[in-house]
Amino acid sequence: MAGNSIGQLFKVSTFGESHGVALGGVVDGCPAGLEITEDDLQIDLDRRKPGQSRYTTQRREEDKVQILSGVFEGKTTGTSIGLLIKNGDQRSQDYGKIKEVFRPGHGDYTYWHKYGIRDYRGGGRASARETAIRVAAGGIAKKYLKQIHGIEIKACLSQLGPIKAESFDWQCVETNPFFFPDASKLDALDDYMRDLKKQGDSIGAKVKVIASNVPVGLGEPVFDRLDAEIAHSLMSINAVKGVEIGDGFEVVEQKGSQHRDELTPEGFTSNHAGGVLAGISTGQDIIASIALKPTSSITIPGKSLNINNESVDMITKGRHDPCVGIRAIPIVEAMMAITLMDHLLRQRGQNPHVNLVHGAIPGSNNK
Amino acid sequence: MAGNSIGQLFKVSTFGESHGVALGGVVDGCPAGLEITEDDLQIDLDRRKPGQSRYTTQRREEDKVQILSGVFEGKTTGTSIGLLIKNGDQRSQDYGKIKEVFRPGHGDYTYWHKYGIRDYRGGGRASARETAIRVAAGGIAKKYLKQIHGIEIKACLSQLGPIKAESFDWQCVETNPFFFPDASKLDALDDYMRDLKKQGDSIGAKVKVIASNVPVGLGEPVFDRLDAEIAHSLMSINAVKGVEIGDGFEVVEQKGSQHRDELTPEGFTSNHAGGVLAGISTGQDIIASIALKPTSSITIPGKSLNINNESVDMITKGRHDPCVGIRAIPIVEAMMAITLMDHLLRQRGQNPHVNLVHGAIPGSNNK
Amino acid sequence: MAGNSIGQLFKVSTFGESHGVALGGVVDGCPAGLEITEDDLQIDLDRRKPGQSRYTTQRREEDKVQILSGVFEGKTTGTSIGLLIKNGDQRSQDYGKIKEVFRPGHGDYTYWHKYGIRDYRGGGRASARETAIRVAAGGIAKKYLKQIHGIEIKACLSQLGPIKAESFDWQCVETNPFFFPDASKLDALDDYMRDLKKQGDSIGAKVKVIASNVPVGLGEPVFDRLDAEIAHSLMSINAVKGVEIGDGFEVVEQKGSQHRDELTPEGFTSNHAGGVLAGISTGQDIIASIALKPTSSITIPGKSLNINNESVDMITKGRHDPCVGIRAIPIVEAMMAITLMDHLLRQRGQNPHVNLVHGAIPGSNNK
Amino acid sequence: MAGNSIGQLFKVSTFGESHGVALGGVVDGCPAGLEITEDDLQIDLDRRKPGQSRYTTQRREEDKVQILSGVFEGKTTGTSIGLLIKNGDQRSQDYGKIKEVFRPGHGDYTYWHKYGIRDYRGGGRASARETAIRVAAGGIAKKYLKQIHGIEIKACLSQLGPIKAESFDWQCVETNPFFFPDASKLDALDDYMRDLKKQGDSIGAKVKVIASNVPVGLGEPVFDRLDAEIAHSLMSINAVKGVEIGDGFEVVEQKGSQHRDELTPEGFTSNHAGGVLAGISTGQDIIASIALKPTSSITIPGKSLNINNESVDMITKGRHDPCVGIRAIPIVEAMMAITLMDHLLRQRGQNPHVNLVHGAIPGSNNK
Repeated sequence: MAGNSIGQLFKVSTFGESHGVALGGVVDGCPAGLEITEDDLQIDLDRRKPGQSRYTTQRREEDKVQILSGVFEGKTTGTSIGLLIKNGDQRSQDYGKIKEVFRPGHGDYTYWHKYGIRDYRGGGRASARETAIRVAAGGIAKKYLKQIHGIEIKACLSQLGPIKAESFDWQCVETNPFFFPDASKLDALDDYMRDLKKQGDSIGAKVKVIASNVPVGLGEPVFDRLDAEIAHSLMSINAVKGVEIGDGFEVVEQKGSQHRDELTPEGFTSNHAGGVLAGISTGQDIIASIALKPTSSITIPGKSLNINNESVDMITKGRHDPCVGIRAIPIVEAMMAITLMDHLLRQRGQNPHVNLVHGAIPGSNNK
Repeated sequence: MAGNSIGQLFKVSTFGESHGVALGGVVDGCPAGLEITEDDLQIDLDRRKPGQSRYTTQRREEDKVQILSGVFEGKTTGTSIGLLIKNGDQRSQDYGKIKEVFRPGHGDYTYWHKYGIRDYRGGGRASARETAIRVAAGGIAKKYLKQIHGIEIKACLSQLGPIKAESFDWQCVETNPFFFPDASKLDALDDYMRDLKKQGDSIGAKVKVIASNVPVGLGEPVFDRLDAEIAHSLMSINAVKGVEIGDGFEVVEQKGSQHRDELTPEGFTSNHAGGVLAGISTGQDIIASIALKPTSSITIPGKSLNINNESVDMITKGRHDPCVGIRAIPIVEAMMAITLMDHLLRQRGQNPHVNLVHGAIPGSNNK
Repeated sequence: MAGNSIGQLFKVSTFGESHGVALGGVVDGCPAGLEITEDDLQIDLDRRKPGQSRYTTQRREEDKVQILSGVFEGKTTGTSIGLLIKNGDQRSQDYGKIKEVFRPGHGDYTYWHKYGIRDYRGGGRASARETAIRVAAGGIAKKYLKQIHGIEIKACLSQLGPIKAESFDWQCVETNPFFFPDASKLDALDDYMRDLKKQGDSIGAKVKVIASNVPVGLGEPVFDRLDAEIAHSLMSINAVKGVEIGDGFEVVEQKGSQHRDELTPEGFTSNHAGGVLAGISTGQDIIASIALKPTSSITIPGKSLNINNESVDMITKGRHDPCVGIRAIPIVEAMMAITLMDHLLRQRGQNPHVNLVHGAIPGSNNK
Repeated sequence: MAGNSIGQLFKVSTFGESHGVALGGVVDGCPAGLEITEDDLQIDLDRRKPGQSRYTTQRREEDKVQILSGVFEGKTTGTSIGLLIKNGDQRSQDYGKIKEVFRPGHGDYTYWHKYGIRDYRGGGRASARETAIRVAAGGIAKKYLKQIHGIEIKACLSQLGPIKAESFDWQCVETNPFFFPDASKLDALDDYMRDLKKQGDSIGAKVKVIASNVPVGLGEPVFDRLDAEIAHSLMSINAVKGVEIGDGFEVVEQKGSQHRDELTPEGFTSNHAGGVLAGISTGQDIIASIALKPTSSITIPGKSLNINNESVDMITKGRHDPCVGIRAIPIVEAMMAITLMDHLLRQRGQNPHVNLVHGAIPGSNNK
C-alpha cells in the first residue's frame, strides 16, 4: 500500500512538503454529528508552531488550517473532511547549496536511492513540516474522543538529554515552552539549551503520553493489537527511534511477581502494563514513551558525500531545532488520538453487542 | 480491519488457539518460483519448540507444519499458500479452575470485556501458541529474502534480567538453549534460571535482531516508514512492551554530533540509525531490540477476581516459561522477515522476475 | 495488496487449488457469541456439490468442512475462524496432456504469463474448486445476518441460454437441480441440457440474487458504495462477465420519470434501484444479477498453442459442467452475504449513534 | 474501511461536496520521475465540464485544478500528490426548498438514514461533482500508463436511450458534445435530446471503454481479479447500475464453442473475453461497458416525503442533465486508468525503474 495513509475506519491521508505550495489531507470516517471548527484544530497547531520559544526554529510559519469539506452547519456530516494549510515562509535559498549533497542523518540519501529523485529543499516530504496536517487531523479525533467518550490525551517532555522530570505537574506542562512537567528543573533546561545553541549542537529527548478514561476492549489481536498500532503510529513520527508501553524497557529486569498488575474489586493495584494487556486496552491509563534522536541539522561540520560520490563537509546554516523533541508533543498527542479513534470505531463495528465500559472497572459484567 | 492479518503485498493471515483443533494460516503474495518445502519451515519451528531446555515449558508439542497449497513440484506458484499445524498435547484439565477467574497479567480480563466471551483454556487466542504459524510463515519470507536477495536475519537474547551479553558470537547463539551470544555468561544464566524456577517466579528479557544486506530504499513514508512497520510487527508479539531501532532509547542523551552517521566514499562511518533513515532502509544492517515482560504465569500466588467481582487468590499450576524471551527469538526473526518481505515487494512488485509483455502475444515465453 | 482476501471488518482469506492437498481459509471479524457448527456450513456446501444432477460434473467430491478455531462451546469467540476442506477425488491423470498447452478460455495462458509458472492440473487456483471455501465462509455470514438481523439471501437461475424464467417461485428453486424458479420450463431445461451434453458444448447463464430485510444505511461512499462492493464481490466469481443492480442494463432505455422510485408514507412505490441509492442501501430488497459465460471445457475441439508457440488442437476429456451457472447459486449467495456482513459491521463502527433500521421505512426519523 | 479511498499501491483519496468550499484529494503511489503539469490534468477536466453543449447542465464551473505537492521541477517525486479544485458557481438558493424533503432517486433519503444528518445543498457528497477530482487523479494515471507503457484508454457513448451506435469512429467521438462514435446518428441524437428537454424528462445511457496495449498479467486472483476491480471502480461512479466485460450479458446465450477465444501463433482469433481471462489481463484490448440510469432531477413532478413523513410533490427546478451519461465519459476513463495503474504497480512495485542496491553503498548513482 502506498504509505501516506493510516487507519482503517478512521483514515487519515496526507500530502505536502516543507517547501511545496501547501500541506493537506483527507480525514475519512469521522462519524456524523460532531461539532468542529477550524479554531478547534488551530489550538494544537499553535502549540506546535515554531517560534514559541527562543530555542525553537525561527522559521515563521502561519499554519492556519482550513476545513474544506465534510462539515455542514458546524457539524461533521460523516463524509470525508478536507484539510489545507498553506505554506508561507520558506526561504528556499537557504537550501540551494545542498542540492547535490546528502546531509548525514537526513533522508536525502535514502530518498534519492528509493525514488531516484528528491526535492532537496528543506527535507521535502521527509521534513517534520508534514506533521502539521497530522496535528490538525488529530484535533478532530481528540475532540470526538473527548466529547463523546470523555477520553483525554496529554503528552509532555519527560526527559531532555540528561535532565529528567522527577515530578509530573500537568499545569506546569502548558506554561513553559518545553512542555516540561517539573518546574524545579526549568532553569537547568534553559541553561542547557543555551549552551547547546552556542555549541551549534543538538540533543535527544523523551516524550511521555497518557490517554485516560479509555474504554476496555480496544485493539484487534493478534496483529493489530492496540500497543502494536500505537507503536506504529508513534514510530512514524520523524526522529523517533524507540517506543515503549507502560514500564517499557524496565520490564527486562522485572520479576513476574513485581510486574503483574493484580486485580481487586476496587480496581487494579498497579499499572505496569501501561493500560494494554494481550493487546487490548484494560481501561487503565494508556502510558507510552518515545525516544527522539537529536536532529542532524547542526552547525558543527560533518562529513558527507555529493551525488558524484565525492567527500564534502556539511554545515547546516538554515534554521533548525536544537531539540526536536519539544515540538513533538502535539504530534504525539495527535497520533495517539488518531489510533485510539480508529480502534474505537473498529470495536463498535466488530463487537456491537458489547457495551463500551470506560475506565478500569474490574469484574464488571458488561453484558 | 479485522486484526488477524498483516502485510499488503505479502500478507499473512492466521487462526488458532492454544487448545483448539489446529493452528493455521494463509500466506499470500509470495512470488512464484521459490523452492520451498515443509522441512524448510520445520527448522525454525523446531528452534521455537518447548522442551528444548529444562527451563522452558514442559509441554510437548509436535508442531509439524503442513503446506496445503500454493506449491507445485517444489516451487511456489504465486497463489496463496495454506499452512496447518495440528495441536497435540493440550491437557485441558489444567485450566478448568480458571474458567471463571481473570488471571492477572493475562488477556483473560481484556478478552472477556472485548468480546463478552472467552476461551479460557490456556490463554485461547492470546496464547503465545499462535506464534507457531507466524514462525512457519516467516520461514517462507526468510527463504525468499535469503535466496533471491542475500538478506540474512538473526536474533539472539541480548539480556536476561540483570545479565547482559557483553560480546556477540553468533556461533554461540545457536549452541545454547538460551540463544545467548556471550559464552562467558552461560553458567551465570543457568544458575539464575534455576533459582528462578525454585522461587516459582519469572523474569523479563531483551532480544536483539539484525537484518543484513538489506537493499537501500525499503519503507513507504510517511506512515508506513520501515521502522514504524517493524515496530508494529515486533510489538504484535506477545509480551513485548518496547521496541527500539539502532541506538534506541540511548539517543535521548546523545548529541547530534555523536549520533549522526557520516557518509564517506568508503561507506557510512557508523550505524547509530540502525539501518533506517527518514523511514527508509539505508543498506546498513537493520538493528532492532525488543523488551519482553516476565510472564504472569508463575506459582507465586497473586490477587485476582472472578467474574462475580469477588477476590480470589491465583496460583498457576500449569506449565509455564520462567522466561518467555528465550522462545521469542525465532518469532522475532519471523516477524522481521515478514515485514521486510512485504516492503521488498512493495518497492519491487508482486512478480518482479517476470518482464511485462505488452499487447497480446500468445505463446511468447517471457522468461 | 495480495488478492486472496476480501473485506475490511469481516475479512475472508482463502487458499487452495483444485488438485492440491486441501482448500482452506481464515474468516476474521465475526462478532463473538454467534452459535455456529460445521453442519450449518455443510448445508450450502452440499447445495454446491457436483453430482447433484446428471448434468453437473461427475467428479465426486466430499467437501466436508472442518472448523479449526474461533468457536468455543458452540459459539464464536470473536477470534479468527479457520476452515478446512480436504480434497479427495482428483484424477490427476486426466490433465497430464495439457501440461504444456494453454486451453483457450481458461487461465492457463494468463497464469503462465503473470507468474512464469503454473499448476496445470485442472485449473489450479483458477479452478472453481476454490469457491468451496467461499461458500463455507459465506455460511457464517449468512447465519449472522439471518439470526441477528433477520436478513435473508436467496439466489436462483433466472436464465439458461435462451430459456428465461417467467415466474419466480422460491419453493420451486430448492426442488430442482437447476435452482430454476419457473416450474413450467423445467422439461424444456432438461431437454436443452441433454442436447448440449450430446453436442459436447456448453451454455451461459444468468443468476439473480435477492437480499431482503437489509437495514437502511449500508455502504461507504464514494468508492466503497454498496453496489460497487457487490459488483466486486460477484465479479470475483469464476466465469462472471457482468453484474447489474436493480433494473441493470434496462435503465439505458428508461426515462427518469419511469425509473425513479417514488416515496410515500406507506413506502416506496417501486424498486427500480434494486435496493441501493447513491451507493447506500434503502432498506428495500437488494436485487442483483450476474452473467456467467459458458465454460470452455467442452469436448468440441478448438485451436490452441503449446508453450513453444506451436498450434495444437484442444479437446477436453476430463469432467466438466455444460453449464457452470447452475453451481454458482450458493457461491453468489455466499459472496452477497460476505459483502453485506462487512458493511453491516462497518456501519456499526462508522455511525454508532444511528440505530439500524431494517426494511424500507421511508420518513422514519431514526434519531 | 472508510470509503473515500481506492487502490492499494496507487491510492486515491478524495473529499468535497457540490456546495462546499473545494474538492480535493491525495494521489499516493505515483512512481517518481513522471513529467506532469496542471495543464495535463486540465484537459480531461475540460472534457467533463458542464456547459459543453446546450443539453448539459448550465451550471458554469471553473474546475481549475491545482497541484499542491509531490511534483518538483516538473516531475513527480514519488511522494503524495495533493490536488485541489475550488468550487465557484453554486447558487445555493436553488436548493433551499428541499432542505426537508427527500428527492426520489437521489441519496437524500439514504444519507439521512445512514448518517443522521445531511448536507442538502445540491446532493452534497452524493453529487456527481465529486468526480471532478477523480478525473484529475485519473489524469496522472493516464499519463503514466501512456508514457511509460503505451497504454491508451478511450471511452465513448455507445447508446443513448433507444439510439445505438452502429459504427465506432474514435475521431467522431472527440468532435461532438455527446462523445458519440457514429456520425450517421448525430442528428437523431440531437432531436431526441431536444424533445427530452421539452418534456422535462431524462434518459439512461450506455458507455463503452477500451484500454489497449495492456500488458499480460495484471490482476490479483482470486478476489482482486482485474475484472472484479474494474467492476468496483466503474460501479462506484454515480448513476451506474451495471458493468460488463467483453461480451457481457450476451454470454448468457452463447455456446462455449462460440465464446472461447482461440489461440494461434499469430494471436487470439477473437476477444469475447474482453481482455480478461481468469481475472488476469490477456494483453488484448480490455473492453467494458456500463449502464447509467436516467437522472431523477427532472421537472416532471414526482411523489416524495419530507422528514415528517408527509407526502409532498417534488419538482426539480435547478439545473440538471437530461442525460448524465454524456458527462461520464472522462470519469469512466479516469476510473479505468486508476485501476490499471494500481494493478500495474502491484505487478511491478512502487519504484520499478529503480534497481535494488543491496548493502550500504553511499553515493552510488543507481540510475
